[in-house]
Amino acid sequence: MTHSRRKFLQYSAVMGASAFASPLAGLAMPWQQRKLGVALIGLGGYATNQLAPALQQTQNIELRGIVTGTPSKIPVWVEKYKIQDKNIYNYENFDKIVDNKDIDVVYIVLPNSMHAEYTIRAAKAGKHVICEKPMAVSVKEGQAMIDACKKANRQLAIGYRLHYDPFHLEMMRLTREKVFGKVKLVEASDGFRAGDPNQWRLKHALSGGGPLMDVGIYAIQGARYTVGEEPIYVTAQEFPKTEPEKFKDVEESLAWQLYFPGGAIANSFSTYTTGVNRLYAAAEGGWYEVNNAYGYRGQQGRTSKGPMEITPINQQAAHMDGVAKAILENRPNNVPGEEGLRDMKVIEGIYEAISSGKKVKLDLLK
Amino acid sequence: MTHSRRKFLQYSAVMGASAFASPLAGLAMPWQQRKLGVALIGLGGYATNQLAPALQQTQNIELRGIVTGTPSKIPVWVEKYKIQDKNIYNYENFDKIVDNKDIDVVYIVLPNSMHAEYTIRAAKAGKHVICEKPMAVSVKEGQAMIDACKKANRQLAIGYRLHYDPFHLEMMRLTREKVFGKVKLVEASDGFRAGDPNQWRLKHALSGGGPLMDVGIYAIQGARYTVGEEPIYVTAQEFPKTEPEKFKDVEESLAWQLYFPGGAIANSFSTYTTGVNRLYAAAEGGWYEVNNAYGYRGQQGRTSKGPMEITPINQQAAHMDGVAKAILENRPNNVPGEEGLRDMKVIEGIYEAISSGKKVKLDLLK
Repeated sequence: MTHSRRKFLQYSAVMGASAFASPLAGLAMPWQQRKLGVALIGLGGYATNQLAPALQQTQNIELRGIVTGTPSKIPVWVEKYKIQDKNIYNYENFDKIVDNKDIDVVYIVLPNSMHAEYTIRAAKAGKHVICEKPMAVSVKEGQAMIDACKKANRQLAIGYRLHYDPFHLEMMRLTREKVFGKVKLVEASDGFRAGDPNQWRLKHALSGGGPLMDVGIYAIQGARYTVGEEPIYVTAQEFPKTEPEKFKDVEESLAWQLYFPGGAIANSFSTYTTGVNRLYAAAEGGWYEVNNAYGYRGQQGRTSKGPMEITPINQQAAHMDGVAKAILENRPNNVPGEEGLRDMKVIEGIYEAISSGKKVKLDLLK
Repeated sequence: MTHSRRKFLQYSAVMGASAFASPLAGLAMPWQQRKLGVALIGLGGYATNQLAPALQQTQNIELRGIVTGTPSKIPVWVEKYKIQDKNIYNYENFDKIVDNKDIDVVYIVLPNSMHAEYTIRAAKAGKHVICEKPMAVSVKEGQAMIDACKKANRQLAIGYRLHYDPFHLEMMRLTREKVFGKVKLVEASDGFRAGDPNQWRLKHALSGGGPLMDVGIYAIQGARYTVGEEPIYVTAQEFPKTEPEKFKDVEESLAWQLYFPGGAIANSFSTYTTGVNRLYAAAEGGWYEVNNAYGYRGQQGRTSKGPMEITPINQQAAHMDGVAKAILENRPNNVPGEEGLRDMKVIEGIYEAISSGKKVKLDLLK
């Protein structure tokens, strides 16, 4: 990849490639005249350590509000990010955000089982929504979220930051342009050691499932965009628990296989027992991969021709800027609810394949 | 790894570590007084391009005989390797090798379905046997081969060259010494594009199966020695054929999962559609892997701490020298028939899991 192409990819990930196609490129566009205001709902680790810092780097969106059930967290955020009192909500008075013109977008960073409720409440309050992955704990909930945002004429975007990461954009490009020919096999795995036995991830009522819901979804995503098709059936296997008490409520480790209409296969694994983190494609004429594929940083890309020479960016900033730009330009964003719903269909298919022991047909296009 | 340790590993792979443990190290040992003579049965690509050249580098064994059904091949071998007329056989007169004192070992490089017959005939002729992988096309055949060699008081070794390859020895050491803690997950895949539609590999009567038999067996091997335990059950999936005419007789692509008693899992894939070639271990405290893992050369080893600094060796020479040394010292070799039989049990388990759609128990230790 040439240097200029790299720079283009990095910039376009943040600003959208259309700026380059426009004869007005370089001039201030109407949407550049203002930034959107976002409120973060749920001030856990991801909001605190990733999203809020990223929002200090964004061009099209800025942190203006918080929603939290823990009053003791408020002073820190007020001091650090100059959050105004009128932009601070709790879960009871959250719906009053309908009257708050500072807040255009609500970013939902709550446990999975709360995504549907708060997406629907935010849409009813007239706000655009960015919702963390998985979008919900079921296809049914996901569809209700899409419907609610459509009815409110608001955008729904899922927290798929990797659609704005230059390593993953390069994987997509290599597939799309068939640089190494047609993809035949994807190996995609994502797992980590879940330490704290009391974390919400391990409670099914909050998480909706185990590592599949939490990080396996990245391997599903990766397989789908690296094959460049939608899978038509899935097989899956859950493995015996080595820590049955800790993982009594959710699966500990599982594998699954996606079969695609063009004959490509994806073989995947996800676990709460150990770190594994890879997206690999074997194509007719070579291979390409990202290791530490799904992390917030530290991606390492290689192809059968050599390393990917890509400069990392802030994924969260690029993602939120990209979504905000779409909202400002009044066009669909790159990671809409429909994209999240396709992963939910695969996840439900995997759980069904595990419980039935049979292959399960998928129809992600309907 | 230090330089001296590397050198030690390389040398010990060829000569056996015991030379260093002995107070006589460096002096001529009794077994060094002579080389064994080997006859290659089956002068296909592997014998021609790998084994015969490797036998020019061996210390304990040398090429003295050939067995071929194609008389036109003989003059080339006679000229290139100075094979004496009395050491040349065909498949009809092969059993007369019993009277040939030049030949101590027969190396069987025939299609899989002929391994059992020629191993048993060679044992009856009083010869030690090295048999290519897979050792046979069934557990039953494999057991008969072991029994025949035992009855004849001859050694049986399987062509598992990677047990003598320094990258794979390093994978085994990292597991054995728990350098990164206990292994939790192995990903092992081996596949290539089978070009010629008329090759024997695609004929079930000769091969006994598809990519699983031919190269998937390396992924089984790799998973077993990288976990350092024997699997207790297997699940497996065959995928629809993209070239059903070409692969009408054998599977085209398949995946399988091995579950180990300590809780480790191996997720594997094998195919005749595309190149994939990897052995990866995720352990409690880090990861280690070999890419281009199962090739004759070109291994690339890495751990979560950095690259494996290992100088490649000639795998085939190390393998044959190692087996020959065990024979000369009258002790068991490192890759005996029993090791081959364990892989045959896994292979039969995989095919059974595919046809039944259920998990299949394995007992490799009985």
